[in-house]
Amino acid sequence: MSSPPPLSAPETDATLETRIAAAIDGKTKPLGALGAIEPLAARIAQIQGTLMPRADTCRLTIFAADHGMARAGVSAFPQDVTRQMVFNFLTGGAAANVFARSVGADVQVVDAGVAGVPIEHPDLISRRMGDGTANAIEGPAMTSAVCDAALSAGMTLGREGQVAVACFGEMGIGNTSSASLVAAKILGVPVSVLTGRGTGLDDAGLDRKRALLEQAAARTGPDLDAHTALQHFGGFEIVMMAGAMMGAAETGRIVLVDGFIASVAALAAVRIAPECRTNMVFAHQSAEAGHRRVLTALDAAPLLQLDMRLGEGTGALLAFPLVRAAADMLRDMASFESAGVSGPA
Amino acid sequence: MSSPPPLSAPETDATLETRIAAAIDGKTKPLGALGAIEPLAARIAQIQGTLMPRADTCRLTIFAADHGMARAGVSAFPQDVTRQMVFNFLTGGAAANVFARSVGADVQVVDAGVAGVPIEHPDLISRRMGDGTANAIEGPAMTSAVCDAALSAGMTLGREGQVAVACFGEMGIGNTSSASLVAAKILGVPVSVLTGRGTGLDDAGLDRKRALLEQAAARTGPDLDAHTALQHFGGFEIVMMAGAMMGAAETGRIVLVDGFIASVAALAAVRIAPECRTNMVFAHQSAEAGHRRVLTALDAAPLLQLDMRLGEGTGALLAFPLVRAAADMLRDMASFESAGVSGPA
Repeated sequence: MSSPPPLSAPETDATLETRIAAAIDGKTKPLGALGAIEPLAARIAQIQGTLMPRADTCRLTIFAADHGMARAGVSAFPQDVTRQMVFNFLTGGAAANVFARSVGADVQVVDAGVAGVPIEHPDLISRRMGDGTANAIEGPAMTSAVCDAALSAGMTLGREGQVAVACFGEMGIGNTSSASLVAAKILGVPVSVLTGRGTGLDDAGLDRKRALLEQAAARTGPDLDAHTALQHFGGFEIVMMAGAMMGAAETGRIVLVDGFIASVAALAAVRIAPECRTNMVFAHQSAEAGHRRVLTALDAAPLLQLDMRLGEGTGALLAFPLVRAAADMLRDMASFESAGVSGPA
Repeated sequence: MSSPPPLSAPETDATLETRIAAAIDGKTKPLGALGAIEPLAARIAQIQGTLMPRADTCRLTIFAADHGMARAGVSAFPQDVTRQMVFNFLTGGAAANVFARSVGADVQVVDAGVAGVPIEHPDLISRRMGDGTANAIEGPAMTSAVCDAALSAGMTLGREGQVAVACFGEMGIGNTSSASLVAAKILGVPVSVLTGRGTGLDDAGLDRKRALLEQAAARTGPDLDAHTALQHFGGFEIVMMAGAMMGAAETGRIVLVDGFIASVAALAAVRIAPECRTNMVFAHQSAEAGHRRVLTALDAAPLLQLDMRLGEGTGALLAFPLVRAAADMLRDMASFESAGVSGPA
């Protein structure tokens, strides 16, 4: 894997921005004809501080953890599935593994706090913050100290390695509930407007989930700072992902944000460390209710609209070829001048 | 490059469809959670007649030709740009080349009738149907015999090689005008509703283009069969692309359809040989006015919405990783049964 390019000689951001825009406009194509690929290329060039960006290397880190709330019946799937899916990730059979191989990305799996006996596997990164969270319907999901530890563990993981594009995924039965609560408290909106079917609840299941989440939400005031929202309602995987996004941004990576749950982690990360927003590229608009609201709060225009709602980082992986192609375009495509092509008459 | 899988043992399409749906639903993910990737995988499996599809190999064929209409001033760019861009394709500097390298596709360039002295280059495939078309504002763009020859040359090119995914691109100054006229006559709608800014006309240029296209359209009745529409208003690159799509479909390939102009070629191909619709996957919704109308007529839901309007097959190339990933998902992803993961409670 190649290193992300170093920041080039000091120049003001405004100068760089002008040079990036001129380079893109000088490519052999009508002005703006590559649509969303052009601002994407500009964003990557800004992140890497160069007109010759590279986004060839990609790593997906999947954080898995369990939720005390899951035992109250907020999901269509039993809690055991979190653990079973960790084994599926480790043996390469999950959608995230297949897509990672397909697009040329590496996969890491982190146990952030899967319920039950700790899983022993040579490829599993153990950062267990507990035996699942406490039931957030009844009390805080974790202590403030554990929330700090999860953020810190995530930051360290996000800083590691030499990859240009960092994708983060999650697995945790019940975690759309956790994400809805965290986002509702950060945005100061009723949790019901951010509550969806998750992995596929029917109407009765959705009603039950809404009632439970309203009960949980009633435990605190309507507006919480990001840290307090994570502590009260987060899952270990969501908190750790927020930290990892901060760490990856700090080390100059492109942070490719997956669907609803990853976007909520991104929202928390941006509230804690606003400068990390610069490094974020949003992969897709998911089918989960509430995702659009979170994206709007982040002023994010996602690259893909494929009605996906799986998580695991699958949307981020499918967007990675667009990110790589955008960098390739800016670095490798001929200019009108270099190719001897005439501009508009 | 591997061959597309052979058709498997005879079974009815209905049986295969049921087995494909069961295989996708049995994968370790909530039902439908991969959104548009799921029907895409099903389509690929149907095309290849197997539950173990492969879409690893991709070839872009770019057809270049000139348009008599271009000299009347329908484009923002001078006609010489067609020829200059052919050299840009041959030296690997165009957006299509960069994206092809980025996603792992091969590129072929075909001279279908570029104006001026024939280009001599070892990598250029010469299928010249003339020194550009005649000016379609004043009379038919080509004779019926030349239209047949262009379709036939395209069919032969489409049948060649062993690639699983066939993308087709075009280059021809003035060819959004040609495409708008062909589509208007096939669909029986006024050409003005299908006329857009092409490579970037300003308001005055767009008014001029509209007036010229209405003048051209007035030469014939409002409804034409596809062959007559191609003969009167087509470009050599558009006719040859329609033929290539038929040839590629006939030989069992996935035909990945690019933007507005390629979609018009697809529309003509489907009107001439309806069975080729099965093999078509639509890459993106372009920013060109009229594309949505053509996609609707084809009952097509494109994969990407990136506001691109470059042509060259660039949108098809960016969609190729999604096609490959969809095939990989069906072929490689674990089932609930194989991975020992519990289904919904």
